[in-house]
Parts: sequence; C-alpha cells; structure tokens
Amino acid sequence: MPTSFLGSALRGTFFFIFGLWWSVRYPLQYLRRKPNAESQPSHGVRRVEIFEGAVKAFFALAGILIEQFIPDGPHLQLYSPKAHSWTDLTSWHYTTMYLFFLLSGIVDIVSHSPLKLPRGLDRLSLSVALLIEGLLFSFRDYSDAALDHHLHSLLAMAIFAGALCALLEIFIRDHIILETFRTGSFLLQGSWFWQIGFVLSPPWGGPGWDQTDGSNLTFLTMCFCWHYAGALAVLAANSAASRCCNESCQLKFGDIDVELDCGMCIHKGNKSSSSALLPEGFSDDK
Amino acid sequence: MPTSFLGSALRGTFFFIFGLWWSVRYPLQYLRRKPNAESQPSHGVRRVEIFEGAVKAFFALAGILIEQFIPDGPHLQLYSPKAHSWTDLTSWHYTTMYLFFLLSGIVDIVSHSPLKLPRGLDRLSLSVALLIEGLLFSFRDYSDAALDHHLHSLLAMAIFAGALCALLEIFIRDHIILETFRTGSFLLQGSWFWQIGFVLSPPWGGPGWDQTDGSNLTFLTMCFCWHYAGALAVLAANSAASRCCNESCQLKFGDIDVELDCGMCIHKGNKSSSSALLPEGFSDDK
Amino acid sequence: MPTSFLGSALRGTFFFIFGLWWSVRYPLQYLRRKPNAESQPSHGVRRVEIFEGAVKAFFALAGILIEQFIPDGPHLQLYSPKAHSWTDLTSWHYTTMYLFFLLSGIVDIVSHSPLKLPRGLDRLSLSVALLIEGLLFSFRDYSDAALDHHLHSLLAMAIFAGALCALLEIFIRDHIILETFRTGSFLLQGSWFWQIGFVLSPPWGGPGWDQTDGSNLTFLTMCFCWHYAGALAVLAANSAASRCCNESCQLKFGDIDVELDCGMCIHKGNKSSSSALLPEGFSDDK
Amino acid sequence: MPTSFLGSALRGTFFFIFGLWWSVRYPLQYLRRKPNAESQPSHGVRRVEIFEGAVKAFFALAGILIEQFIPDGPHLQLYSPKAHSWTDLTSWHYTTMYLFFLLSGIVDIVSHSPLKLPRGLDRLSLSVALLIEGLLFSFRDYSDAALDHHLHSLLAMAIFAGALCALLEIFIRDHIILETFRTGSFLLQGSWFWQIGFVLSPPWGGPGWDQTDGSNLTFLTMCFCWHYAGALAVLAANSAASRCCNESCQLKFGDIDVELDCGMCIHKGNKSSSSALLPEGFSDDK
Repeated sequence: MPTSFLGSALRGTFFFIFGLWWSVRYPLQYLRRKPNAESQPSHGVRRVEIFEGAVKAFFALAGILIEQFIPDGPHLQLYSPKAHSWTDLTSWHYTTMYLFFLLSGIVDIVSHSPLKLPRGLDRLSLSVALLIEGLLFSFRDYSDAALDHHLHSLLAMAIFAGALCALLEIFIRDHIILETFRTGSFLLQGSWFWQIGFVLSPPWGGPGWDQTDGSNLTFLTMCFCWHYAGALAVLAANSAASRCCNESCQLKFGDIDVELDCGMCIHKGNKSSSSALLPEGFSDDK
Repeated sequence: MPTSFLGSALRGTFFFIFGLWWSVRYPLQYLRRKPNAESQPSHGVRRVEIFEGAVKAFFALAGILIEQFIPDGPHLQLYSPKAHSWTDLTSWHYTTMYLFFLLSGIVDIVSHSPLKLPRGLDRLSLSVALLIEGLLFSFRDYSDAALDHHLHSLLAMAIFAGALCALLEIFIRDHIILETFRTGSFLLQGSWFWQIGFVLSPPWGGPGWDQTDGSNLTFLTMCFCWHYAGALAVLAANSAASRCCNESCQLKFGDIDVELDCGMCIHKGNKSSSSALLPEGFSDDK
Repeated sequence: MPTSFLGSALRGTFFFIFGLWWSVRYPLQYLRRKPNAESQPSHGVRRVEIFEGAVKAFFALAGILIEQFIPDGPHLQLYSPKAHSWTDLTSWHYTTMYLFFLLSGIVDIVSHSPLKLPRGLDRLSLSVALLIEGLLFSFRDYSDAALDHHLHSLLAMAIFAGALCALLEIFIRDHIILETFRTGSFLLQGSWFWQIGFVLSPPWGGPGWDQTDGSNLTFLTMCFCWHYAGALAVLAANSAASRCCNESCQLKFGDIDVELDCGMCIHKGNKSSSSALLPEGFSDDK
Repeated sequence: MPTSFLGSALRGTFFFIFGLWWSVRYPLQYLRRKPNAESQPSHGVRRVEIFEGAVKAFFALAGILIEQFIPDGPHLQLYSPKAHSWTDLTSWHYTTMYLFFLLSGIVDIVSHSPLKLPRGLDRLSLSVALLIEGLLFSFRDYSDAALDHHLHSLLAMAIFAGALCALLEIFIRDHIILETFRTGSFLLQGSWFWQIGFVLSPPWGGPGWDQTDGSNLTFLTMCFCWHYAGALAVLAANSAASRCCNESCQLKFGDIDVELDCGMCIHKGNKSSSSALLPEGFSDDK
C-alpha cells in the first residue's frame, strides 16, 4: 500500500516543528550558558525539557491515533482471520515508529522530573526511537519500486545521522555543535517527508513520478542535498535571529524574549514567578 | 538442518536470565554507588562479578554438552569419513558460540580474582563472545530461506548492539546508560531467540511460517521492535522495583534486599560476615 | 554523460592545492605551538583560517560558474520543458558539490571573525561538505560502467576518510595526527581526480580504458594505493622542508618563512605590523 | 592466478612472529609500567620500538623481493607490451601491501629516533598499512571463486579489527586492552594466512578444496573462530609465562628476563650498559 500524502505531510510537520524549535532554543541556551557554567541543568532548562517531552508524546499519540483510526486504517486489528493475512502493515509500521517516540517523550518527562534518574537517559531514548525508525524504513518491503526505495534510503540516512548524534550526546552533553547537527537532521527529515509525499502521491492526484526513470533517482539525490542546504539556511537564520533577539533583550529587558523561552530566563529576576507555576513537590533537588 | 525449538528456547532463556539479572543488579549498584565514589570495584561487586562469570561458564558448558550429546547430535565428531562430508555443522556452530561465552565466563572469574589482571578484560571477552556470535549468524548458510535469513539478521543487530556497548565499556566503566543499553540488548536477544523458535519450528509441530510470503518479513521487523519495547518495559519495571526495594531496605534494614544483592550491602555492617565466607587468600588488594 | 577531463583536472587541482598548503601549514603550526600552549586560536592562526575560507569559497564559486556556464553547460536551467527531461544532471551534480564547499568557506570566514561563534563549526561544515560529496558520488547513476563505478568508489573512500577525520576534529582540535591524515586524504583525492580524468576521458582523445576488462579494476585498486603512497611522500617531504625552514628561520629571522606563514609569526615581534593590516572591528576578543 | 602456498605461509609467518613478540612484550611492559608512571616512552621502550620497526621493514623488504624475483614473478615489469596486458597483478598486489608495511617500519624507526616527531605517527602508519591491506583484499578480483572470496573476507575482518585498534591507539596510548586485542588480531591473521594456503593450494599438491560446496564455507567460518580461540590461548599462555618470568626475575635478578626485554630493564641498574650500545646522537631528549 503506497504512502498517502497526508500521512507523509503530518510526519514531516512533526519533525520540522521540532527542528524549528531547537534551532531557536539551542542557540539561546548556548549564549546564556556562558556566565554561570554549571554542569547540572538549571531549573528553567529542566522545565523546557519536560515541555518538549510532553509535546513529543502528544504528537506521537496523535500520530498513532490517526494511523489507526483513519477510515481505511486497521483499527487496532493486526491479523485478518477472513483473508488469512496481515491487515495493512504500513499503518502498523508507522504506529510502531510513533510508539517509540511516545516512549521517548515519556522518558523525557520522567527523567527531568524530581526523580533521581541518571542523565543521558533522555538522549538514549531519543536515539533508540530514531534507530527503530531507521530500521523500519531500511527493512520495509519496497518490492520493485526503485524510486520508493531510493527516497527512503536517503531518509534513513538523515535518520541515522540524527540517531548517531543523539548517541554521542549521551556522553558529550550540551555540546552546541552536536545540538546544531541534530537540529539540522530533524529539519532535513521533516522537509524530506514532505518531498516523499509530493513525489510518491502528489496531493493533486495522479500516479506520482516515474519509478523506472533513472534520472529521477539522480535528481532526487541532489534534491536531498538542496533540502539539507535549505535546512542549514533556516538554522543559520534562526540562530542569527535568536542572537539579535537575545542581545536586544539583554539591553531592554524585552518581553518578546521572555515569551520565546520564559523557562530559560531565570537569571533575570523572574525566577520566583516561574517557580510559582510549578506544583509543590517540584523543587530543585540540588 | 533447521533450528530446533528446544535449542532456540534454551539459548533464549540463557540470555533472558542474564538480562533480567542485570536489570535488577545495575540499578541497585547505581543507586548505591553515589555516597562513596571509588574508582576500584568494591569487594562486594567483585564477588558478584565472579558469581556472574561462574553462572555464564556453567550455562555455556551446559549448552555445549546439550548441542553435542543430544541423540542426533554430532557427539564431538566433526567429519564423517563414510559420507565424505562434515557432520551436522549447525550443532558445531552453536558449540563454537557457547565456547566463546565459556571463555568469557572464565575471564570474568579470573579477572576479578586477586590476580592483578588489567580492568576491562572482562568486557573485552564479553564483546569478543558477542562479535563471534554475530559473525557466526551473519555468515551462516541460509541458502534460499528468506525468512530464516531475515530473522537472524535482526538477531545479529541485537547482538552487535550488545557487542558495541561492551566494547565501549572497556573505556567507560560503570556508566549506567551503557549498562542499561546492554541489558536491553540481552533481553531483546533472549526473547527474539524464543520468537525464532516459534516461527521456524513451532513446538506444536508443523512446518513453520511461510518462507516466501513477503508480508511475514515486514511483520517480523515490526515484531522485533515490539520485542524491544517489551524488553524496555521489563527493564523499567525492574529498575523501579529495585529502587523501591532499595529505599524500603534503607528504611527498615529489610532482608529481601540482602537476599537480592547480599554482595553489595557491605556498607551496611555485614562486611565482616560476607568476608568470612571467602577463602584465606581472597583479601582486598587495595 | 561522461566526466570531461578538464572538469576532473580542475577539481583535482583544487583539492591538491589545499592538501599542499596544509602539508606546509600544519607542521609549522605544530612546531610553533609548543612554547605558549593556549587553547584559544591565536590572532595569526585566525587570519590564516579566514584566508583559507576565502580561497575555498573562491574556488567553489569558480567551480560552480564553470560547471554552469561552459558552452554545453545547463546555464542554470534544471528542467527542459521541450524534452520533458532533466537537463545535464552531471553539471548540476558538481554544482551541488561545490555549493557545500562554498558554504564551508563562508562558515570558515564567519566563524573566525570577531563574532562569538562556537568553535568546531568550521570543521562541522567541512565534514558536511565532504559527506555530501561522498553521498553524491555513491548514489550517482553509473548504469553498467563497472570501471567508472570502481574509480568513484575508491574516490568515495578517500572522501569519507577525510570527512570522518574532520568530524573527529570537532572534538579533538589541533591534533597533528588528525591534521596529517586529513591532509593526506586531500592530496589523495586531488591526484585521484586527475587519474579519473586520464582513465575515463584521456586529454589526447580516445575512448578511455576498457570498462569490461577485470584486470583494469585490479590494477586501479593498486594504483589508488600508490597514489596514497605518493601523497604520503609529498606530505613527508613538505613537513621536512617546513621543519628545516622553521629552524633556519629561528636562527636567521629569515624572510622566506614570513612569506610562507606571515600570520603565524606573531610571537616574533611582527604582531603590531600584522595587526595593522586588519580592519578596525577586528580586535582580539579574548 | 591462485595464491601459492609458500607466499601465503611466508605472510602468515611474518604476522604470527609479530603477534608472538607482542604477546610477550606488552604484558611485561604493563607489569613494569606501574611503579614510575611517566607519559613519555622511556629510553628502553624507544629502543624496542626502533628494533621492531627495523624488523618490520626487513620483513616487508624481504616480502617485496620474494614476490618480485621468484622465477615466475614479474621482475618489476608492470605492463607487458607484447601481450597488451598487465603482468601478474597478484604479485604486484602483495608488493603494494608489503610496501606500506615497509613505510610503517620506517616511520617507526624515525618517529622513535631523537627527532621531535609527534607521538601517534607510528600507530597511524600501522593502521594505514592495515587499511591498505584490507582494501586490497576487499577489492581483489575473485571472479566466481566463492571459497576464495569467503576466506579473504574473513581475513579482511581480522585485518580491519587490527586497523581499528591501531587507529584508537593514536588517541589512547599504552592501553593494555587495546594492545592485547591488536596482538590477538595479528596472531589470528598469521594463522589464517596459513589456513588459506592449506585450503587453496595445499603443499602436498592437488587442487585445493571444493569451491562450490556450501558446507565448506560454513565450516571455514567456524574454523576462523577456532583460530581466534587458539590465538587467545597462545596470548594467555605467553602473558602468564611473562608474568611468572617477570616475578622470578624480580626475585633473582635473573638473566632470562634480561635477554627477553633487555631494553625495558632500565630501572634495574643496567641503564648505563644499555645506553652504551647506542650511537652518540641518541640521547634522551626529555
């Protein structure tokens, strides 16, 4: 069963939103990390991580529900006794993929809660989610659709690059270069999911691109590189914007900045107010 | 010659028992490591390691004997001069695999004995055992059994993940994230050996699953991911249980905890009693 | 469309020039690093890096313009509506490759400017450029030209070796062994581009080597090793020459040396003069 | 052209001798490293390295001469203008391989001489030699000889394991586990070259094993593992022997030990005598 455009666009949007968010968050965090160099994540950073985990879990749950309960989805049925065959493995395939991102979201929330969980567990769960995603796309049954296979091989490359980066972050935390690389791989993945949608099942209908034309493969390899160049451009623009915004914020105690990353502004006097939003048990365990 | 269900189940049980044991041991060790952060392994940890090595060597020896001396096994005969061919290479294949785990067990025992062996040798021997296991499964003759090949490729992935993790542990000792990942890979390997048994040679007889059906391959890839999700769930449950148990033990000086990891309780006053169980020469060489 | 000799020679020359430059620069930098071991790059090193980035960007821009605007180039046209096909993907392929080196050059310039960009970004952008180059050569459509494929597989090996080395340099800066290895891989890449030109489209005309002869493949594998031996010889000769030159310079306050790496001579009294060449805003931000 | 038994045995002997030597040298060095933990290699260790380099270069030179000037060798002729074809590429293949070990030997000698070469260059050159060897065996033309290909694939695995280990040693020097692993890979390589000789061109004549029999492949995979088990046994025996020998030497100031590693005994009073063997310029540059 071919990929639907909407499913592909949805997945792309999820990854792209995360990439965009990180392209703002990490540069800001990097610029503010300097003055007080502490190894433990601050109160604000921890709240941001929990928020991120919650959004990730919500996206994953939404993805699972959509994949399962669209009109022609499997509705949680795995084996059709009538047809003596598996029902709609593509939907189950995406459900499995979302399941591990749901897990990663939950681990994010739990590991930054006041429980004394070891650091790095959040990165491990993220890299496991990406490795499983890559594994699923690598071992999918493409039968003889060369273009389909090629598109997903390129996707798998972006996925594994992200997974490797997250694995390294278990050992090397708060390294801006690794964070930048991971952000880039998420932006690439997001936009490439959209590209896959347009190539294999165009939203305006029609049969998609010619699977047998070799020059399409060559073009799409290049196109993948251009997507990455675009992702890097977005990354650079957002980093530069964050920087300007941060500097003007430091001059004017501006409120745009506070909106953007209210959790990270604790060293600017709004610590008491942000702490007030937390429940009783959520105290700093340092 | 096809894999027998019993052999597969036996292998799975060995790996699963180790995974379960580690999922209790490492969280406990992590929680207790904090107060007195010493780089050398304590007396208790060393005894646990020797015990683990002995169990590993015993399992491996049992595996070798079973593979060789089951009624239709090769009985240590490698070449049949009558038939001018190798006899039963599958049994020899598993014997070789067990041999390296036997070696790893012996190295565990020797390297934590009072002899001044370099640290990390136990992890090297474990990773060598896993690499050899992975090599044997990668280069096995699957002829044209696509499903058989696919199942063992997935297995090899779990094996190599464990091997890589053990290799890293040569350099980064006592890292809870690496220990967790290794535990997960052993649980996955264990349960996947059972799955292989059920798919290729069901215990209720019959010919196993259809080797030519492509959708079986796709389903089993997903199934592999679910096994890992299950392994992670077991890991999380055991870690949580260890934690609760550890906390209640610290409150009540409980005896359940002492049973679970008597070797690690040395900082609670039973050091003298545990040392009393050791032979003369087994003194701390710090 | 086959590779043209001139294009191949141009690419080879770009990489070879960089290799040659590094084979002089890094040994000198290593010999002078000793006395004052500072972690931050000195003023002079930074100027050299900016110069390098500018040259890299210029080469890349020249490459793009040549690939696009040679008489039978695509002239920035990607799709030919008349022929209903992509126009000249080989030229676009090389344009993409140059684009990422252009990006890497710009990042070099920006990251060593007084802006507070994180260290390691220059190495990341270099390794991204190399990874993209390797990806493009790996996924190119070689149809059934075995020799063409083989030549570019060997090239991809040199490229990925360089990329891996640049990735490591993100974490391990100023490591002379890594710098030597990277230099060697660039020299190899440069000379191998020339070899590809001679094999596939000899400058004296003619059809190139026989694509179907297996012994050509075996010979070219060896030839690749000899190219590397040659690259190592050039590297050794240049390092030895730099060393002698450096020693005689330290004796005579020679002027040959100042020409070679005027930017690195700041600890010899010409700091004021070299700083005078810089614009106002370019002050040391230490 | 098939591999000759004598050539294979010669190569195997070279690697095995190095493995054996290291299996004595590194344990001794490890045991004696403890008391005075200095980061710079001592005078004695440096002399041992130079001796090793000289032996390596001699072996490699001998190998080159034998490959080129055996009666039916190429006698330095690469292209036969008469036959319009390459002459005897297999001999040139091994010549290339030996060439890089010759280079590695020379680098060993030079980098441990009083010249101020950066540390790690010896390990880099060793790993380059191994990578080139692996590359040559991976890209060899096996045409349709499945057994030949399989044997050399397994060999390439041992080679790449050694290369990876040497690469790691650039960064992590004097790590006994890495040294042990490298020693094991050399012993394995040595004994596997002998096995290749016996399988493909038995010394008692005859056509070698059946290339088409699948069970031969399966058996040889296992056989490779047994070779490694044997290599580990040799390693363990030699380490144990070195240890006993070292302990008895420390008790009796024995002379067997001095013969074994006279260069390393400098902290036992024979420093003056060993220094006396060195030429004038060879003074400690610390």
